[in-house]
Amino acid sequence: MKIIARISTDLPSKFGLPRQSGLVEGIEGRIVFEEEYRNPEAFRGLEDFSHIWLLWQFSEAVRDVWSPTVRPPMLGGNKRVGVFATRSPFRPNSIGLSSVKLERIEFTADKGPVLCVSGCDLMDGTPIYDIKPYLAYTDSHPDAVGGFTQSLPERKLNVDVSDELLSRVPESKRATLRAILSQDPRPSYQNDPERIYGFVYAGFEVRFAVCDGVLTVVSIDFVS
Amino acid sequence: MKIIARISTDLPSKFGLPRQSGLVEGIEGRIVFEEEYRNPEAFRGLEDFSHIWLLWQFSEAVRDVWSPTVRPPMLGGNKRVGVFATRSPFRPNSIGLSSVKLERIEFTADKGPVLCVSGCDLMDGTPIYDIKPYLAYTDSHPDAVGGFTQSLPERKLNVDVSDELLSRVPESKRATLRAILSQDPRPSYQNDPERIYGFVYAGFEVRFAVCDGVLTVVSIDFVS
Repeated sequence: MKIIARISTDLPSKFGLPRQSGLVEGIEGRIVFEEEYRNPEAFRGLEDFSHIWLLWQFSEAVRDVWSPTVRPPMLGGNKRVGVFATRSPFRPNSIGLSSVKLERIEFTADKGPVLCVSGCDLMDGTPIYDIKPYLAYTDSHPDAVGGFTQSLPERKLNVDVSDELLSRVPESKRATLRAILSQDPRPSYQNDPERIYGFVYAGFEVRFAVCDGVLTVVSIDFVS
Repeated sequence: MKIIARISTDLPSKFGLPRQSGLVEGIEGRIVFEEEYRNPEAFRGLEDFSHIWLLWQFSEAVRDVWSPTVRPPMLGGNKRVGVFATRSPFRPNSIGLSSVKLERIEFTADKGPVLCVSGCDLMDGTPIYDIKPYLAYTDSHPDAVGGFTQSLPERKLNVDVSDELLSRVPESKRATLRAILSQDPRPSYQNDPERIYGFVYAGFEVRFAVCDGVLTVVSIDFVS
């Protein structure tokens, strides 16, 4: 498997990443191809699709061993499920699958065609193996039954952040930051109201605590 | 990438294969895992999902070179489109993506867990890289816009086959054979009413001609 491209996003680590694609529409990505794959002809017709599939490498989860069961964060991290019943990164082949919205293709002078996408669940720098058009007639099954994911309550948090803190982040990033926070970016087997969690988004370190369904932001600092 | 399983289906070659998954519900597959992946624990919870993703190898399309454009059969085979705007097997990484219906899991004594699926578009013996649960909340986009595939007329053929010929095929396979034929299993840049085409399904060689939107079966013979 050859790495054909890498995606750049505002999330440099797994902390703060939504658990699947499409959950936070505002997370944008720019897919830049390796030199060998920059021929604009290879993208002819792609701009007419609204969504694309990304096949990518769980680059932080490549391991030689795999475990038959995993503990999905969605189940609170204390119940074991078969690895093939989950989208866990820790699987025999470290390959991820995400559908994202194709916003536009930029044809640049220095990097060739760059795909601008949204609704990402990929870390900055994630290697991409393949891009495929999303075909609703074969890929979309709105009534598919989702096993253990089906009956889970939606776990959105209320987000409490002062205007003073939020104003440190560029205006165009604020709604997305709120959306990321409402998705509960804690490792979900943790529930310690005293604990301060943190992650980096768009160059800002965001620190917060969670108590009784309310996430309170305690600091936002520019780090890079 | 490790091969974790192989699928067995009734179609031993690419001829007769539907162009995507789900188009012919009756095409069944049995996914048998390599010994290393037969631990039933790895499948715990999977039986509660109605659909699964298969990531698989286009085993007959592995090549060292790739072409930036391809000529999709759906467009009659005479119009070039960028390879990343298609699901063509001839791409930089020979990896396919199909959603199939999970009918049941059989826990066998000799081969471990066997996944019984339907709606397949895979050749008999195709190597499988990964199995993932289908999650409608992230994977299903019924309104996604499908580029050049969007405006194509549905090209179903009327199928003319005598009762005498059809009765050679086991009763349980007849409706599926009809469905495969109605999908027009010709290489679609060909339109020669004189020509006899053929493929093998469920051990029977099926030969046919197509004229004016009618597919006429000329022979059905048991071959293996």
